[in-house]
This record gives sequence, C-alpha cells and structure tokens, in this order.
Amino acid sequence: MNSFTDQRRNKAAPAAPASSLAVAAVLPAGRSGERMSVPTPKQFCPVLERPLISYILQALERVCWIKDIVVSVTRENMEAMKGIIQKKKYQHKRISLVEAGVTRHRSIFNGLKALAEDQSDSKLSKPEVVIIHDAVRPFVEEDILLKVATAAKEHGAAGAIRPLVSTVISPSANGCLDHSLERARHRASEMPQAFLYDVIYAAYQQCSDYDLEFGTECLQLALKYCHVKAKLVEGSPDLWKVTYKRDLYAAESIIKERISQHICIVMDTKEDEEHVGHHLEEMLKNELNHVKVTSGPLGHAGRDLQQIILEQCYSFVCVNVMTSAFEETQKLLNMLKESHLSVLYPVAVISVHFLDYKSVHFDHKMENLMQIRELAKEVKERNILLCGLLIYYSQDEQKLQDSLRQGATIIATLIKERNSAFIGQLLVA
Amino acid sequence: MNSFTDQRRNKAAPAAPASSLAVAAVLPAGRSGERMSVPTPKQFCPVLERPLISYILQALERVCWIKDIVVSVTRENMEAMKGIIQKKKYQHKRISLVEAGVTRHRSIFNGLKALAEDQSDSKLSKPEVVIIHDAVRPFVEEDILLKVATAAKEHGAAGAIRPLVSTVISPSANGCLDHSLERARHRASEMPQAFLYDVIYAAYQQCSDYDLEFGTECLQLALKYCHVKAKLVEGSPDLWKVTYKRDLYAAESIIKERISQHICIVMDTKEDEEHVGHHLEEMLKNELNHVKVTSGPLGHAGRDLQQIILEQCYSFVCVNVMTSAFEETQKLLNMLKESHLSVLYPVAVISVHFLDYKSVHFDHKMENLMQIRELAKEVKERNILLCGLLIYYSQDEQKLQDSLRQGATIIATLIKERNSAFIGQLLVA
Repeated sequence: MNSFTDQRRNKAAPAAPASSLAVAAVLPAGRSGERMSVPTPKQFCPVLERPLISYILQALERVCWIKDIVVSVTRENMEAMKGIIQKKKYQHKRISLVEAGVTRHRSIFNGLKALAEDQSDSKLSKPEVVIIHDAVRPFVEEDILLKVATAAKEHGAAGAIRPLVSTVISPSANGCLDHSLERARHRASEMPQAFLYDVIYAAYQQCSDYDLEFGTECLQLALKYCHVKAKLVEGSPDLWKVTYKRDLYAAESIIKERISQHICIVMDTKEDEEHVGHHLEEMLKNELNHVKVTSGPLGHAGRDLQQIILEQCYSFVCVNVMTSAFEETQKLLNMLKESHLSVLYPVAVISVHFLDYKSVHFDHKMENLMQIRELAKEVKERNILLCGLLIYYSQDEQKLQDSLRQGATIIATLIKERNSAFIGQLLVA
Repeated sequence: MNSFTDQRRNKAAPAAPASSLAVAAVLPAGRSGERMSVPTPKQFCPVLERPLISYILQALERVCWIKDIVVSVTRENMEAMKGIIQKKKYQHKRISLVEAGVTRHRSIFNGLKALAEDQSDSKLSKPEVVIIHDAVRPFVEEDILLKVATAAKEHGAAGAIRPLVSTVISPSANGCLDHSLERARHRASEMPQAFLYDVIYAAYQQCSDYDLEFGTECLQLALKYCHVKAKLVEGSPDLWKVTYKRDLYAAESIIKERISQHICIVMDTKEDEEHVGHHLEEMLKNELNHVKVTSGPLGHAGRDLQQIILEQCYSFVCVNVMTSAFEETQKLLNMLKESHLSVLYPVAVISVHFLDYKSVHFDHKMENLMQIRELAKEVKERNILLCGLLIYYSQDEQKLQDSLRQGATIIATLIKERNSAFIGQLLVA
C-alpha cells in the first residue's frame, strides 16, 4: 500500500531564461466567437463554472519569468473582464487591460503599444521579448513558452507549429480543386509565438491597413517588414484552440481528467489488510486505471495530508468504518477549507459509511447521516463538493463484495464527473 | 403547455438521388490510432459504451440509397470488427469487410477492388458512384453525402471542405519560416468524398507505389491520373475527425447533448396548472434551455407516447404525485422495453415522487420506494437507466419551491450526464 509520504512529485521545472531577459505577454481577447453558435464570446464561456480565459491567464501567471500580461478586450466586454481579474478567488495578478481593436492584428498592436517605452503614465515597462498567445488555448505549458521565448531572443521571432490534421487544398475560381498541398511539407501555425519586442513593434508600425484588417499571422508580419525568419518550434497537441462548441466540451473533460488523476483515501482505522476499507481501496484502483491512489488514517497523517493538499490533489474519499458520524469527514473538510485548495478547482469529497440495514441502530444512524445535506451546503460555498455513500455491510461475503464493487464505481463516477447537482446526496451501494 | 400531439417533427428528408444511381461507400478503418496515446485504435474506442465506428456505420446505414458499405480492417482487428457488425443490438446491415492495407490509400484500394465487377464470388455489385468516408468522423449527415454523391456524378469527383482553423506555413530546411499561406485562399480537405467508380478505380490502378505509401488525398489521385478536377462542397463543422483523446470526449458530449434535446414528462394526474407537477415542469424548462419538453398524463396518452418514442425521445421524467409506488413508471418502462428505443442509445428515466417526510406513512412509502433498486437492475439489461428522485412536499411554499428547483437541477444533470453508475439511486431534493 502506498503511504502518504511517498507522494512528492519529482517533475523538474524548466529552467527560467536568464534573469536579465525581460519577457511580457500579449493576449488578444477581442473575438466575438461567431463560430461557436453561442451568444457568449468563447473566451468568457464557463468551464467548470469558471470563464475559459481565466485558465489561460492562470497558465501564464504560473510562469514566474513572464513579468507583465497585457490583455486586449473589447469595450463591451471590458467590465466583465475587470470582474474576472478582480475576483479574489481566481487570484489573478500581473494583468493589464487595454482596449481591443476590431481585428486580431489591431488588438495585438494595441497590446504592444501599451508596452512601448513612451507610455508615460504606465506601470508597464518595455520588455526585450514579447510572447503572443490566444485567449482560447487553455493548456499552454511553461516548457513551450520557454522554447519560443528563447528562440525569439536568438532568431528575432519564433512560433509553435503542429502537423496538419487535414490535407490543405487550393480551390479554383469555379469551386473545383486546383491543387492540393503536400501534407508533409506544411505545418499548422499555432500559438504561442514570441518576438524580440523591437522586431514585432517595428513590423506593426510599418504594416499596411490591409494587413491590419485581413492578416492573421504575426510571423508573416515579422518576415515581410523586418525580414526576420521565425524559428519554428514543434508544439504538443495540448496547444489546440477552442473554436467550436465541441472544443468547450473537450476542455471541460480534460480539466476534469487532470484534477481526478490523484485520489486520496482517508480512513478512520489503522492499517489492516483484511479490512473492508482496504478492499474498497483495491476495487477503486481497478476502477480508476492510471490514477494515483494514496491512503492512510487521518489522525496520524495530518502532516502528510498537508503535503498531499500542497501537491494539488483534488479528490478525497473519507472511509468511516467505525462510526456513522461525520467526525473524520469534518476534520478533513476543515483541513481543506484552511488550505484554499478549492480556490481554482472544485474539490470532491466522498464520505463513505458502512451500514448494516438490519442493525437495530439503523434508523438512528440514518438520522445522523442526514446531516450531510447541511454540511454539503455549507462547504459548497467554498467550492467543495461533498457527497455521501452508504455501503451495505453484509455478513454474506459475496454480497459485501458486490456492494464494494458498486461503491467503487459510484465513487469513481462522482470524482470524474464532479457535478455539483449531487452534493449532499446519500447514495447507496 | 405543449401536448403530446404537437410534437411531430417536420424536418424534410433530403431528396434521394435518382433511383438509377447505384452508390456504395468505402470506409478505411485500418488506422492504429497512434495520435491518441491510448492502446485501442480510436475507431474502436467506446463512446457511451459503444465503439466509435458503430456510430459511423449507423450514419451511413440510415441513408437508404447507399447500397453497400465496405469497411477495410486490419487482420488483427478483423475479429473485433466482425463482433461489432454481428452484434444484434447495433443492428448493422449492408456491411462487407475486407482486409486493410498498410496505408490509408492501400486500404481504400482494397475496398474499391471488392466492388469491382470481376469479383466472381462476391454479393457486391459495381456502383456508379462510390463515397469514401473516414471511420473516425461520427457525425456525417445525409445532406452532405447527397451533395458529394450528386456532384461526383456530374464532375467525376467531389469532396467536402472546411475553412482552415490555423494558418498554414511552409518551413525551410533549417526549421525556420519560409512563407505562410494566405488563409482565405486555402481550405481543409475533409471527408466524405465521392467519385465516379470508374474514375477513382482507374486512378488507383495507375498510381505509383510512392502514392500508395505516402499519399493521403484521393482528390489528388483523381486529378493526377484521370485529370478530373473535383467539385468542392462546403461541409458543416460536424464533419471533424476524431484525432486526439480530447475529440473522443467531445464526441461523447455531443452525442449526450443530442439525445437530451427532447424530454418527455409523464404525469399521473390530469392537467392542472396549480399543480406541483407543473411547477416542476416550468423549472425544468428554465434549467434546460433549448430543450423541447412535452408532458401529459400517461393513461390518456398511450398513443401519443408511442409517437414520441418513434421520434426518438431518449429522456423521460415520470412524475408521481398521487402515489409513492411505481405503477406509472412501470407502465412507461414496459412501453419503452417494447419499443426497442434503447437499442442504440441509453434511455434515461427519472421516477419522481413527492413525499412529506413528516407524514405518518413516510416509512411505509420509503419501503415501497426501495424497490427501485431491483427495477433499475432489471431495465439496465435493456439499456434503460432508471433513477429515483424524492421531492420534499413541504406545506411551506418557499421550501417547496426550493425543493422543486433543486429537483429540476438534479433531473437535468441526470439526463445530461446519463451515467449508469447512478441507476437505482433515490436522490433527494
């Protein structure tokens, strides 16, 4: 069995660029989302009850060497955007807002202007390298940001690319095929891109109204006006852009999957391999392939649990074998509340209780357990989703195994779906 | 309030091509799915517990003027594929299997060979037009199939296209940008495509080993070897290809959304606007925007309900105001079982009961309601997902409204998520 203390992650952080390199990011967020067939611009669509753009801001803020983040927002969305960056629970920082232009290029140009050195009343300073990213690509990692920033320092410009998913063709005027492009010789240009600030700012200052109206590709501007051939950097599939409604579904599923990768089981008993709690744990491991499960008693594990919370485990199962009360669950909830873990993502807590329906104390125990409704309502305020699970403690070994198996399926589903509609319910296995 | 009989859909079916036009489809399904980072090839990955390829086959089978469907499958997946097309509940028909080649072009060629007229022992006959589609594009509509087939008859070849999502660039040998393509002048070539059989078969017979190994674009073969310039047809965003794991999530969410678009509420009472059942209905309509909700009593509506089932409504709410038993729910379940509606998609049934927890009969009623576990287990075999919901029937108007609102949220979530882990549960609002 894993113990709490084995769980420290050893993922090495990418090396930051030389501390002398001043890097800022510009994020054009002026799009109207006309391809989504939904009224809200896609960057403001909620994903797990939080606007999509907040995830992208968080991804950039996590990177300590990005000093400033400038977001271009349309006048009509300015108040909504201010609301998001001022919302305490999202903890946004280092963000400046500028007004978007009517096209993507104009929005980026406005962002760059705000970083220019001649802005007298600005707290922003001119960076050496500027990263340009999209407000609708939520899964950018520090690794690729570092790669494009470093390559931009060397080459003047750099951008992430991906293999083409479909063949690209060129139509003739009559709507028939003129020729198709060889897929292996072309790439899709994705984001992030990075530039020496002086290069991209000079390009924007020189470029024509036609470019600003109808162009889309910053690398092309650097090439055309500054003769800078951008370095192309292979990106991961994660860099994809939320374009259609299906992409919002995909983004939500990916985030749910990510925060369900590690489950912590807390038990109110000491270690004992024969015990139902451990049977349940084994079944849960079967149910959740590739998911890290750690477990141990809460009383002895306070410090280890702190470590697990620090490692951003968002899924907890509190197994109560000894009592039908919420003492242990309450202790866990208190630790979670203090940790502020749930600020960014909903934390799932399943309080599991073993019950013998034929026991004389059944009614009394059930009455105790109904308290979960109030408890769940209270912690929901803190973005903690509490749900109860009763497992039938049968003397018949086969029946007990069936209940445990069903219980594991229910726990896995509650954690994966993380749906707030089921808080305070007492499910039965 | 809508009544059952208003609900017939008036969506006009696209006109079939002239009955003389013999059309077949070829579906290369030999891919290994290396981009998914999952061991199962993506066409066999389960979506709502059914393999992805089964949805594409169903989409083609629904089109009555496609006479034969030839699927190329690798030897190692042949048995799995046979299992799918023979599985009674998927109701596949008009499918022939051939062995896939090592590349996409070779797999398509094998499919075309099986349709050639010189195949002595084959039940297949040579079509005039052949549609080529992908085993990983689950949402193809009859409309676009008809457009490409008709255009192929006229032009010799035709293919669906979509606007580019990203700019396409051409890298130089040293990994830097050589030039970027003007986005407005290029399109992504998607599927389906269609060809005069003689054109595409002749193209494959002439094409080089290099084409067969490294080519990907059928339209290009028709151009190169038969000088046929394919007609390009604008496709809908639905034509996208399941390429990455996120696309599987998106596909599942889209299917769930589609089968949750129409909810039928059955009540055990006559129409009465004052009634809690109707309050619940109103709240459900608020909760589920853009969803068609129809309702009525079951006893008088047997025939109308048959009509709703025929129109493929997959979501039912059975509101029991008068009793705490499952008589009405059982009647509904019987009708659903007879209809075979649940063969292709899971049907969600929520049995709603109003209870006063302080009533003297509460314990007895609860005992009745526990039967739902057995009932749910039984209908799960038929792909019907039954779940119970108890709504607290308070005399306090505010409390009652709160319970109804929470009940509507739970119903909406159960229908949207359609998760089999929660069958037989009694949720409480």
